[in-house]
Amino acid sequence: MRTECRLCGSGGQGIILAGIILAEAAGIYEGKEVAQAQDYGPAARGDSSKTDVVISDEPIDYPKCSRLDVLVALSQRAFDENNRYLKEDGLLIVDSSIVTPGKEEDVNRFPMTEIARDQVSSPMSVNMVALGIIAGVTGMVKLKSLKQSMFGRIPAHTRNANLAALIAGFKIGKGKKGRRSANCLK
Amino acid sequence: MRTECRLCGSGGQGIILAGIILAEAAGIYEGKEVAQAQDYGPAARGDSSKTDVVISDEPIDYPKCSRLDVLVALSQRAFDENNRYLKEDGLLIVDSSIVTPGKEEDVNRFPMTEIARDQVSSPMSVNMVALGIIAGVTGMVKLKSLKQSMFGRIPAHTRNANLAALIAGFKIGKGKKGRRSANCLK
Repeated sequence: MRTECRLCGSGGQGIILAGIILAEAAGIYEGKEVAQAQDYGPAARGDSSKTDVVISDEPIDYPKCSRLDVLVALSQRAFDENNRYLKEDGLLIVDSSIVTPGKEEDVNRFPMTEIARDQVSSPMSVNMVALGIIAGVTGMVKLKSLKQSMFGRIPAHTRNANLAALIAGFKIGKGKKGRRSANCLK
Repeated sequence: MRTECRLCGSGGQGIILAGIILAEAAGIYEGKEVAQAQDYGPAARGDSSKTDVVISDEPIDYPKCSRLDVLVALSQRAFDENNRYLKEDGLLIVDSSIVTPGKEEDVNRFPMTEIARDQVSSPMSVNMVALGIIAGVTGMVKLKSLKQSMFGRIPAHTRNANLAALIAGFKIGKGKKGRRSANCLK
């Protein structure tokens, strides 16, 4: 089984770091096969940022995503560019503080930016809110693994804020667990 | 033209971050097409860490390296595992504080760990010494681009040490510029 997960947003939201932390959580702390990749340059347009994380039971040949099982969008532009690659039964998670995904009914909407700013008082940690939500909604990675992985990748003085963001995301994600998540992840 | 560059070493040397900084330097600050990727999990063995950076004039389909134009090895194990993938006319750069590459004559040897520890007084910044050396030896990326990219990816309080490491690497690399670098990069 191969699960293709794409995180996308705008520059400065910590998308790439979130991809690495997700990949290391599943690969190093849960022993799964994981590949993680991103593009830069003219082909990666303008201010948009995206990273692909592929998790599999078997060694991974091609580390980029082609048909997404999970798409997490933290900006309108990133959503507009990437939504077309989501599988029909794929899981869509958006930052509803920023993204208006249109008329799709099966969208998992979470006000990530507001949670980071108001609940955690750390706007910079919106990426960790997103990771917590991914773990809570999909169960594709454990909260504990994300914590361990995160601690290895962030500056020590940001630990408390990032941990609070991760846990806040996990709790709100878990509250919606199951909604359109079963099809593509089982 | 497609240039495949692999950085490898052991966990904790900052290999992944170095790959991202190299990729962003070429992709964002020099407008080249760049893909950057890494694997985690059982397939990525033990304590070794590696990241692939592919730089091209055209959009990149496959973001991992198959036949290396440039291999930079910061641990013996990583060297042993990856040396076989270097092209015949490829460029090999090793941390001679740690790696004994055997009888190859055309090796660019730099005591990276010693430079980071003794010259810069910052052992943690051996990855930036390596990046500086890559820029100095190959010219595949500009020092200025690496600086800009690095500043976007490291904590502010580590700026001075990392900048000193980058420049120290660049100077020592430039001193050896040209040695076995022309074939694969032109």
